[in-house]
Amino acid sequence: MSFTIPRGTQDILPGESEKWQIVEQTAHDLCRRYNYKEIRTPIFEQTELFARGVGDTTDIVQKEMYEFKDRGDRSLTLRPEGTAPVVRSYVGEKMHGWVNQPVKLYYTGPMFRYERPQSGRMRQFVQFGVEALGSADPAVDAEVIALAMELYQELGLKDLKLVINSLGDKESREAHKQALIQHFEPRINEFCADCQARLTKNPLRILDCKVDRDHELMGSAPAILDYLNEDSTKYFKQVQEFLSAMKIPFVVDPTLVRGLDYYNNTAFEIMLDGEGFGAITTLAGGGRYNGLVEDIGGPETPGIGFALSIERLLMALEVQGVDLIQDSQLDVYLVTLGDKAKNKAPELLYQLRKQGFSVDADYMGKKMKAQMKTANRQQAHAVLILGDDELAEGKINVKEMATGEQKLLQLGELEAELAALLQRKDEA
Amino acid sequence: MSFTIPRGTQDILPGESEKWQIVEQTAHDLCRRYNYKEIRTPIFEQTELFARGVGDTTDIVQKEMYEFKDRGDRSLTLRPEGTAPVVRSYVGEKMHGWVNQPVKLYYTGPMFRYERPQSGRMRQFVQFGVEALGSADPAVDAEVIALAMELYQELGLKDLKLVINSLGDKESREAHKQALIQHFEPRINEFCADCQARLTKNPLRILDCKVDRDHELMGSAPAILDYLNEDSTKYFKQVQEFLSAMKIPFVVDPTLVRGLDYYNNTAFEIMLDGEGFGAITTLAGGGRYNGLVEDIGGPETPGIGFALSIERLLMALEVQGVDLIQDSQLDVYLVTLGDKAKNKAPELLYQLRKQGFSVDADYMGKKMKAQMKTANRQQAHAVLILGDDELAEGKINVKEMATGEQKLLQLGELEAELAALLQRKDEA
Repeated sequence: MSFTIPRGTQDILPGESEKWQIVEQTAHDLCRRYNYKEIRTPIFEQTELFARGVGDTTDIVQKEMYEFKDRGDRSLTLRPEGTAPVVRSYVGEKMHGWVNQPVKLYYTGPMFRYERPQSGRMRQFVQFGVEALGSADPAVDAEVIALAMELYQELGLKDLKLVINSLGDKESREAHKQALIQHFEPRINEFCADCQARLTKNPLRILDCKVDRDHELMGSAPAILDYLNEDSTKYFKQVQEFLSAMKIPFVVDPTLVRGLDYYNNTAFEIMLDGEGFGAITTLAGGGRYNGLVEDIGGPETPGIGFALSIERLLMALEVQGVDLIQDSQLDVYLVTLGDKAKNKAPELLYQLRKQGFSVDADYMGKKMKAQMKTANRQQAHAVLILGDDELAEGKINVKEMATGEQKLLQLGELEAELAALLQRKDEA
Repeated sequence: MSFTIPRGTQDILPGESEKWQIVEQTAHDLCRRYNYKEIRTPIFEQTELFARGVGDTTDIVQKEMYEFKDRGDRSLTLRPEGTAPVVRSYVGEKMHGWVNQPVKLYYTGPMFRYERPQSGRMRQFVQFGVEALGSADPAVDAEVIALAMELYQELGLKDLKLVINSLGDKESREAHKQALIQHFEPRINEFCADCQARLTKNPLRILDCKVDRDHELMGSAPAILDYLNEDSTKYFKQVQEFLSAMKIPFVVDPTLVRGLDYYNNTAFEIMLDGEGFGAITTLAGGGRYNGLVEDIGGPETPGIGFALSIERLLMALEVQGVDLIQDSQLDVYLVTLGDKAKNKAPELLYQLRKQGFSVDADYMGKKMKAQMKTANRQQAHAVLILGDDELAEGKINVKEMATGEQKLLQLGELEAELAALLQRKDEA
C-alpha cells in the first residue's frame, strides 16, 4: 500500500527547497533592514477568530476554511491568512502597551484554503506578510508598500506593476456604501444570490464578485475615490507623494477593493505586468485596516499590512527565467580505497565538517571509480583521495576539480589547503 | 470580544523569534556541511499514513492525533512527526531511483500531538530532523548521531549525554520478542490493559509503559543486547567504533527502545545530563528503521534518522544560561525636526535600506527629544538628525552612539560615513 499526498498540497524537494531558503532569507534580511520583527503564531486558531477577523461575508470564511473539532470538542480552523492571528496575538499580548510603537511584525508560514487546486492556487500555500500596528502615519503605508516591492526586486523579478487605491475612512466608506446601494438596488435581482445578500450588508463586496463581473452595472458603479472626504483625500495624496519620492512607479485603480472586509484607506496590489502565469497575475496584496484590532477585542488601533504567496513569487521568477540557485554547495568529496581508509572516513568527515567545510563521501560500498563519478556529479570543488597506503603514512591526496591539479599532503596540512583552494574558487 | 490562543500552542514573539532564527540557521548550515538537503512536506497527511508509518499500537496514533475530515470527507491528520511524511514522499517521488544515494534529507516544522500541555510538551511544537535513506552503512548511523550532537554543541549547550542501543535486525528482534513474551506472560494480568494488548502484538512496547514502569518484571526483562545475532553485533560495534574515533562520548543503555514501532538496529537519545527542566531531559531521539519504506509501499530500503524539539533545545539553553542573541540589529535611527524633514524621511529611509542598512524612524509624531529617546532604547549604532534647515542645504547630522561624536555631512556622503561607522563598531 502506498500513500498519496493530500490534494492541493505539495512536497518541496531538494532542488526546489534551496529556492525557498533564498526567498525566505532575502525576506528575513529585508525585514531586518526595515526593522520589522518576526512573529510566529500557531497553525490553527479558534474558528470564530476568522469569522470575526476576516469577515463572515467573505468566500474564505463561507467556503474555504479547514475547520475541525479537537478532542476537547473546540472548533479550530487551520489559518487561512495571517493577519487575524497576528492581531489576536497583538490584543492578547497587549502590544499596544509596548514601548516601541508602531509594533512592526512579519511572518512566514503555511496558510490553508479549501479551494479547487489550480496553477498558483494550492490548498496549502506559504505566505510572507508584514503588519505595522499602532501608527496612522501615511509614511508607514509607503514603507510597507516599498518593502513588498523591494522583495521582488531584490530577487530579480521584473515588470512589476503596483496598483493602489484608497477605500477611504469610515465616513467616506459610509457615503460610498449608500451610493452603491442606490446604484445596485433597482436591478439587484439580476445578480447572483451572494450579491443579493451582500447588497445591504457589504455592497462593496459586489464589485469583487466573480459571477457577475461582466454585468453592465459593474463598470458604471460609483467609485470610492469620488466619495473620499478631505482627510482621506489628503492621506491618499501623501502616500502617493512618498511613493513618488522613492521613485516607485504606481497606478491608481479606483476599482481595487481587495477580497477581505477589513480594509480602509490605502489598498494595494502588486501584479506581474505582461503575460504572467495563467489567469493569475496578482502577486501581493495589502492595505490599511484601522478597525480590525477593535473588532478582535483590542483598543482602537490603526494598522496596515500585506501578504504575498511565495509559491506565486517562485512561479513568477520561473516565468521570467530568473534562477536563484547559484553554485554547488558541496566543497569536498572524500574518495577512499581500501577498508582501513573507508573506516577512517567518518572521523575525517566529522573533523572537516567541524572546520566548516561541506563534505560528503560514499556510503554505498562503491568502487573508487564510481566514487570519483559521484564527486563529479555532485560538483564538489575538491576531491580527497585516501588509500590504505597514504593513511599508513598519515597522508592524503587533494585534487582541485577546477584545475585538475593534485597534491599529496600530510593530514595535518589539509584544513589550510582546502581553505586556500575554496578561496581561489570564490575569487574565480 | 477577544480571542485566546488555542490550548497547548504559543506565539513566538520578537525577543524570542530571533533565537528561533539562530537555531534554524545553525541547523541549516550544519546540514549544508553534512550534505543533507531540505524537504518540506505538508502540514497534514492522510490519516492512514500515520497509522501505518508510526504504528497503530503507539500512544501517538491511539490517543494524540489531530484528525479531521476535509470538505471532501477525506480523513486527514495534522502530522504528529516528520518521518512518515518524508518516507511517503520518498516512495511517491521514487527517490530510491535518484542518482545520488543515500538520499539525505532534513526538515524543520511544526508537529501536532494532542497531549496534556506541560513544560516542554506543547500540542504544537517544532521539530528539526534528518533522514538518510538508502544506505545500510554503520558510518551513516555515526554521521546522523554526530550531526545531532553538533547542533547542540555549536549552539553552546553543555552536559550532553548520548545514549545508544541496538534493537537488532529482524532475526534478533524476533528472538528477543519471544523471550519477552515468555518473561511477561505468566504475570501479564498484573499489568495495565495497554500492556496486556501489547504482549503478543509488540511486547517491546511494554518496556516503554509509563503506568507499569516500576513493576518488578521491568528491571529483570531480557535485554535485546543478549539476543543480537552476529550481523547485528558487528554492526553495533562498528557504530561505536566510529563514534569513538570522532571522540563523541556515549553510553550503551540496553533499556532504550524508543516510542515508535519502526526502529531496528541503532537507537539513540540525547539527554541533558544533570538537572534539566522538570521531568523531561530527553532532547533528541532517533534510530534506524530499515522496514519503514517497505511498510509505506516502497521497495526494501534501509533508513536512519532523528528528530529533536526546538522548544526543548531553547529551554535547555535557557537553563544553562546561554544567550543566543548578541547585539542590537538596528544600525541607524533617523530623528527629524520640522515638517519638511519629516516628509523627507520615507525617501531617505528607503535609500538607506536599499544600501543595506537597518534603519528606522518615528511614525508617532513624537517631538525630537522623544525621538532621541527611542533611538537610545532601540540601541541604534548611529543616529541621523535632520532638521528643515539642514535639509534646505542638503546636509544631515550623524551621531555615533558609542562615542557621542557628531558630524555634519552632505547627504551624498552619508552612505560612506555610515559604512565606516558600522565597521568601527564591528571591530570594537
